[in-house]
Amino acid sequence: MSVLASFLYDDLVRAALREDLGRAGDLTTDAIVPAALTREALVVARSDGRISGVGPALHAFHVLDHGVRAELLIDEGRDARAGDTIAIVRGHARALLTGERTALNFLGHLSGVATVTRGVVRALEGLPTRVVCTRKTTPGLRALEKQAVRAGGGSNHRFGLDDAVLIKDNHRAIAGSVTEAVARAKAAVGHMVKIEVEVDTLAELDEALAAGVDAVLLDNMDIPSLTRAVDLARGRALTEASGGITPVTARDVAATGVDMISIGWLTHSAPSLDVALDVAG
Amino acid sequence: MSVLASFLYDDLVRAALREDLGRAGDLTTDAIVPAALTREALVVARSDGRISGVGPALHAFHVLDHGVRAELLIDEGRDARAGDTIAIVRGHARALLTGERTALNFLGHLSGVATVTRGVVRALEGLPTRVVCTRKTTPGLRALEKQAVRAGGGSNHRFGLDDAVLIKDNHRAIAGSVTEAVARAKAAVGHMVKIEVEVDTLAELDEALAAGVDAVLLDNMDIPSLTRAVDLARGRALTEASGGITPVTARDVAATGVDMISIGWLTHSAPSLDVALDVAG
Amino acid sequence: MSVLASFLYDDLVRAALREDLGRAGDLTTDAIVPAALTREALVVARSDGRISGVGPALHAFHVLDHGVRAELLIDEGRDARAGDTIAIVRGHARALLTGERTALNFLGHLSGVATVTRGVVRALEGLPTRVVCTRKTTPGLRALEKQAVRAGGGSNHRFGLDDAVLIKDNHRAIAGSVTEAVARAKAAVGHMVKIEVEVDTLAELDEALAAGVDAVLLDNMDIPSLTRAVDLARGRALTEASGGITPVTARDVAATGVDMISIGWLTHSAPSLDVALDVAG
Amino acid sequence: MSVLASFLYDDLVRAALREDLGRAGDLTTDAIVPAALTREALVVARSDGRISGVGPALHAFHVLDHGVRAELLIDEGRDARAGDTIAIVRGHARALLTGERTALNFLGHLSGVATVTRGVVRALEGLPTRVVCTRKTTPGLRALEKQAVRAGGGSNHRFGLDDAVLIKDNHRAIAGSVTEAVARAKAAVGHMVKIEVEVDTLAELDEALAAGVDAVLLDNMDIPSLTRAVDLARGRALTEASGGITPVTARDVAATGVDMISIGWLTHSAPSLDVALDVAG
Amino acid sequence: MSVLASFLYDDLVRAALREDLGRAGDLTTDAIVPAALTREALVVARSDGRISGVGPALHAFHVLDHGVRAELLIDEGRDARAGDTIAIVRGHARALLTGERTALNFLGHLSGVATVTRGVVRALEGLPTRVVCTRKTTPGLRALEKQAVRAGGGSNHRFGLDDAVLIKDNHRAIAGSVTEAVARAKAAVGHMVKIEVEVDTLAELDEALAAGVDAVLLDNMDIPSLTRAVDLARGRALTEASGGITPVTARDVAATGVDMISIGWLTHSAPSLDVALDVAG
Amino acid sequence: MSVLASFLYDDLVRAALREDLGRAGDLTTDAIVPAALTREALVVARSDGRISGVGPALHAFHVLDHGVRAELLIDEGRDARAGDTIAIVRGHARALLTGERTALNFLGHLSGVATVTRGVVRALEGLPTRVVCTRKTTPGLRALEKQAVRAGGGSNHRFGLDDAVLIKDNHRAIAGSVTEAVARAKAAVGHMVKIEVEVDTLAELDEALAAGVDAVLLDNMDIPSLTRAVDLARGRALTEASGGITPVTARDVAATGVDMISIGWLTHSAPSLDVALDVAG
Repeated sequence: MSVLASFLYDDLVRAALREDLGRAGDLTTDAIVPAALTREALVVARSDGRISGVGPALHAFHVLDHGVRAELLIDEGRDARAGDTIAIVRGHARALLTGERTALNFLGHLSGVATVTRGVVRALEGLPTRVVCTRKTTPGLRALEKQAVRAGGGSNHRFGLDDAVLIKDNHRAIAGSVTEAVARAKAAVGHMVKIEVEVDTLAELDEALAAGVDAVLLDNMDIPSLTRAVDLARGRALTEASGGITPVTARDVAATGVDMISIGWLTHSAPSLDVALDVAG
Repeated sequence: MSVLASFLYDDLVRAALREDLGRAGDLTTDAIVPAALTREALVVARSDGRISGVGPALHAFHVLDHGVRAELLIDEGRDARAGDTIAIVRGHARALLTGERTALNFLGHLSGVATVTRGVVRALEGLPTRVVCTRKTTPGLRALEKQAVRAGGGSNHRFGLDDAVLIKDNHRAIAGSVTEAVARAKAAVGHMVKIEVEVDTLAELDEALAAGVDAVLLDNMDIPSLTRAVDLARGRALTEASGGITPVTARDVAATGVDMISIGWLTHSAPSLDVALDVAG
Repeated sequence: MSVLASFLYDDLVRAALREDLGRAGDLTTDAIVPAALTREALVVARSDGRISGVGPALHAFHVLDHGVRAELLIDEGRDARAGDTIAIVRGHARALLTGERTALNFLGHLSGVATVTRGVVRALEGLPTRVVCTRKTTPGLRALEKQAVRAGGGSNHRFGLDDAVLIKDNHRAIAGSVTEAVARAKAAVGHMVKIEVEVDTLAELDEALAAGVDAVLLDNMDIPSLTRAVDLARGRALTEASGGITPVTARDVAATGVDMISIGWLTHSAPSLDVALDVAG
Repeated sequence: MSVLASFLYDDLVRAALREDLGRAGDLTTDAIVPAALTREALVVARSDGRISGVGPALHAFHVLDHGVRAELLIDEGRDARAGDTIAIVRGHARALLTGERTALNFLGHLSGVATVTRGVVRALEGLPTRVVCTRKTTPGLRALEKQAVRAGGGSNHRFGLDDAVLIKDNHRAIAGSVTEAVARAKAAVGHMVKIEVEVDTLAELDEALAAGVDAVLLDNMDIPSLTRAVDLARGRALTEASGGITPVTARDVAATGVDMISIGWLTHSAPSLDVALDVAG
Repeated sequence: MSVLASFLYDDLVRAALREDLGRAGDLTTDAIVPAALTREALVVARSDGRISGVGPALHAFHVLDHGVRAELLIDEGRDARAGDTIAIVRGHARALLTGERTALNFLGHLSGVATVTRGVVRALEGLPTRVVCTRKTTPGLRALEKQAVRAGGGSNHRFGLDDAVLIKDNHRAIAGSVTEAVARAKAAVGHMVKIEVEVDTLAELDEALAAGVDAVLLDNMDIPSLTRAVDLARGRALTEASGGITPVTARDVAATGVDMISIGWLTHSAPSLDVALDVAG
Repeated sequence: MSVLASFLYDDLVRAALREDLGRAGDLTTDAIVPAALTREALVVARSDGRISGVGPALHAFHVLDHGVRAELLIDEGRDARAGDTIAIVRGHARALLTGERTALNFLGHLSGVATVTRGVVRALEGLPTRVVCTRKTTPGLRALEKQAVRAGGGSNHRFGLDDAVLIKDNHRAIAGSVTEAVARAKAAVGHMVKIEVEVDTLAELDEALAAGVDAVLLDNMDIPSLTRAVDLARGRALTEASGGITPVTARDVAATGVDMISIGWLTHSAPSLDVALDVAG
């Protein structure tokens, strides 16, 4: 996402704020904090991690109070150590306190995804294999989670059902064969759409390569099969290993020479990074 | 949530579907699967867990194809074993395949929250202490995650900033004292709003109890302090322990006699439950 | 509502403007008033009343023309006499004329609610009883009407069905008894949710108090019954008198010692306060 | 509005329901009322009045539970006596209880507008003068309030700024003269747009008639002036009396022969009609 | 539309940008263009035409980057020659490149409508007949296309079904006669609504004029019939010729003396004007 | 788009209906046509063409009246002759008359795009070259216009800025070279995203092919250059000819052997197909 990205997540941030403010707004803050009071607050990391989500996090304060000014110390995609200040935010104390939880929920969740991704990327250090996320994302947050994966050093698979073709078991079963499924897909989509096929066996891989596809998803194959699959596909299609890959097995899988390993838990099971807002006294 | 609940999550499910369908819809399915073809599909658990999110998950199919019929075998708040069928869905094959990922993303995420909550609730078996979630929820999903916590046997803290008062450090600092902060809150809110105060020390607890509040949040206290705090507050305010509680320490904290322990990671760091859709051949 | 409140009513103000502007905008103003012309206008009260709604009223001009500047002379919750200037607005004449009706519709309606509320509050002068509004509000305007009640010196009951429990006749009938209804409610809701029960007789009141509730709504009771009910409930639950209270009877009802009297007509039947926009020649 | 009208108010009804249900829905009903329970409920009038708003009122139940069936006994625009049943509604008890307040808020408010209008229309019985509403409507409810005026026997002025031209004092002052203002308007708008001019004096009326307009708004004129104005305008433009008309003065104003009298308080100050929902035991 | 017009098309421009940006934004520009880079770009005409749509076109850049500054050289409703610079835009290069296509799609389409309209208007030079558009507009763009017709020198018919009455064949057939249809319409609508009737024959025209209407739509009449119809209607109703009018026949039709000719293809079949964005190297 | 497609265009159809219905709905139909009256209507072609848009067209009636039933005689992507009935629609007469214009505006516009596309496709008969549309689409209608192009036998280029990379002059200028621009793009996007480069000269083509891209856009090249470019690119990248292609020149351009010719006027300048609704008497 670009510097223009707030256009893309503005609705999301507003929805999150509405979810927290409800009908009546922040009862506690409105009762206790004078309207004119201004403060400075630090957004800090409470554990080590890779930062993502600073855009929507800081935008939450901005939506509540256009006068809030933020200074970013640790940018999207950089590492923070526990105790580091990620950003300094200045503005009305009410805006800082009311926006705090929404901002941190974005930052903590997305930095969590980036941090988990960073871990796998580091595990593959020295290998050319890319770490790729899936469509197993949190409803509503896909674009931001995809960005978090990139912030963690990973790469993105397709963003949705409409930007690339991925032929899975069920499609193949309905079409009758890989060959037929690929033929139907090629006839239907434009020249700027890539086609990938999920294969479970080397025989299916042969058929997919013969049909001419851009990539093959090697699903739940053991290491020897992956090795042979990579060999078969070399120069003919990109290879993606998927299914049951764990932090422990990732490097062995990558060592087979697959171009990518794709991992659902980067986005659907990453624990949140601990971040906090410290309002100056 | 009631049987009427689809009104509350309809927008969310549609947004999630739009996020996946983009502009052009499911390129793969539309190319390969005939429009008139119907199928039956099983929603299955691939690991053990507590189920939550069946409402929005099944609603995803319904939005795409009003003719889809679903039979629910394992209801919201019940346990599934790996291999169990949670629901059977029948309708157009296109609707089943196109809605699959959106449905599973809801079901997996929310069952993950329910399963984590169930784990903590079980750890406290025999104790009267309630397990409570926080506002550290995924942006956009708060109501569903709160429901998932209940499905896991937990209880909900406030839903947002507008349905209860929770006076935290920053509010107290700005007001000057707990006494003053509570007084301002009482003057501002109606008679149906509860007031809770976060306290770090027993002195602050004394002040809060003297001010007259409904509950006190005992933040990051060690076990002996918690024990004394519970003693002081008995009959005067509900007690809630919070801060740094882990699966390992939860039972010890609860054994101090606190009415509740509140845990952010129930909602912000629960790994997704592994669920899948098996389309009959 | 806080200084950040425009976030909460921005959508509402835009919807009201769209309702007035339709597809083609202000035909008259666009035809007659040059685009570059600027003017100053006074928002004036044409009768005495308590002011509420200055936020959304002035926001209407701001939405049409970000350059409009407003100076507020009589703030939310203060009294105006007929002829008083409430605010001075400066900007493009088109924005002032096009936004006039929308701004005044908000200001007149909400000041009407505040003024009616002020009347009842004054009638109770010297008594500790609070004047409380209900959920009998104009569709779409609840939060603003609740704020207007506060501006009039009143207090708010719950904002919706989700921030507190109020067990009414129908709930009790379905549950079988007050005791059972309260038990079900306590088991279902979190610790930050208050529970009130509507009772029609002293026997029901006894049952409600025994079940342990935060407040009792004494529905349509005569003065002697109210007096006895207040006596019974003292120290055990807050008491709220409701049903058929008129400006004439309000003080007598309050004199029974009830903590609150709740009145639907504060919000659903308040006549608009007469306000106008005078554009300088 | 037609039988298809639910398309026009569907969004409004949903917004009103969301306003009441908040994030968590109806805590009380969901806790106490079993999901499968069905009931019959009567929508009853508690005072005499003209009914309006049955469409959105009954739609509220339908949105919550598509299975709700309603039988309408007193249709839009007909009179109800205190005690009359307006409609019978059958469906899930949860839908009836949860939708009750939203439905009644629409019905009570709009029937209030219709009832006030009916009162003025009756006061003019035997005279050809039409009773007309203004744009002084409740934000968000204009189309429904305009319909309520028609249900009360009144007639509608323009719906917004874009469907007709009404040249007021400020427009005239900016244009320099009535003649110039009318000329600008005629040059700018299409042939299907009517033009009305507000005049304060007979001299201005002369100028307006000479300029050629469809109607003249006679603002705050006394009875003799109105009589002369009607005489001058006969056969050349419709005449509308406006400003400070009360229930007491309405007939005298109408007796001057004006074609219409327009009254802001029909919509902005009508007290709600008392309506209720009785759920069968 | 006024200087305040961006309020009216803001939603439309955002929807168009979302349509182009999808989930992930401008992949190409974000990959290649540094975030901080600024540029100047010229919006140029590549063929001769009448300009319309500069408002929404320039607003597209503004939405993406509030810092973009635009200088308008050829205003709405003025002519451009091939090669002319319509506007100069300065801001972040990313905003210019990402917003380019959306801006040009608005400008090209609307200038196309204005240019086609200008052509017909010129063909009628010297005649008093107005050129009028219809409701045959592109879904979602009606208000802008109506404005483009005005920019081309044309005039607008009604904007929708709710701002004027147009009785067509089907209405007449259902009512039984023109007389009955007009009577029903007059009874139903307010005094600020004009009524037009479509007539196919002179007999129907007689009936319509007798019923008293504001305008008659003479549908698919040949030149002699039109001439007689104009004669009959003179001083009693405006005359509008419609149906099968081509650039070749327009002048002959207008020469019959009709007040207006209405043409659907002004809005539904105008080719886009060729416009481009030249970013300075 | 699939049978599930109404999910994708439902919002668009509703917006178009709101645009036509305004605040008050169809004044004419509501005044004249009884609410209970039902009718049958034929959707007919008044000139020859390729049909597209039947989905949204028929959906317009369905949104207004869920009881409307439609029978489709000429499906999406089939040819109609003048006079052919495309569909038969039965339901409330009000729904048919009120929805008529919205339905026809979709059907006429999209069939116009399909018909123009069909014309170019036929001109290339016997050649393997695909006819491709661009992003020069009507704001808000891109997905439907892309579908119309497919209905006309054409193929789609990318749907937006986020589903493929297209490096244009401005990107290349900012990057410094084609090589650098391609390198940046490859580093930034995932493996399922195709990359195309616009080239103006054979030298640039060489550089693009060396950089390794999926497709090259040969912009405004003459026939000899195109022939050489196709030769150079054979087996290395798909070739797309673009710029100034007319119905007259299309076949010559295709005969050079380019894989695709892309044409903006398929979507931005197609005249509407003449379609009508005939309501049975």
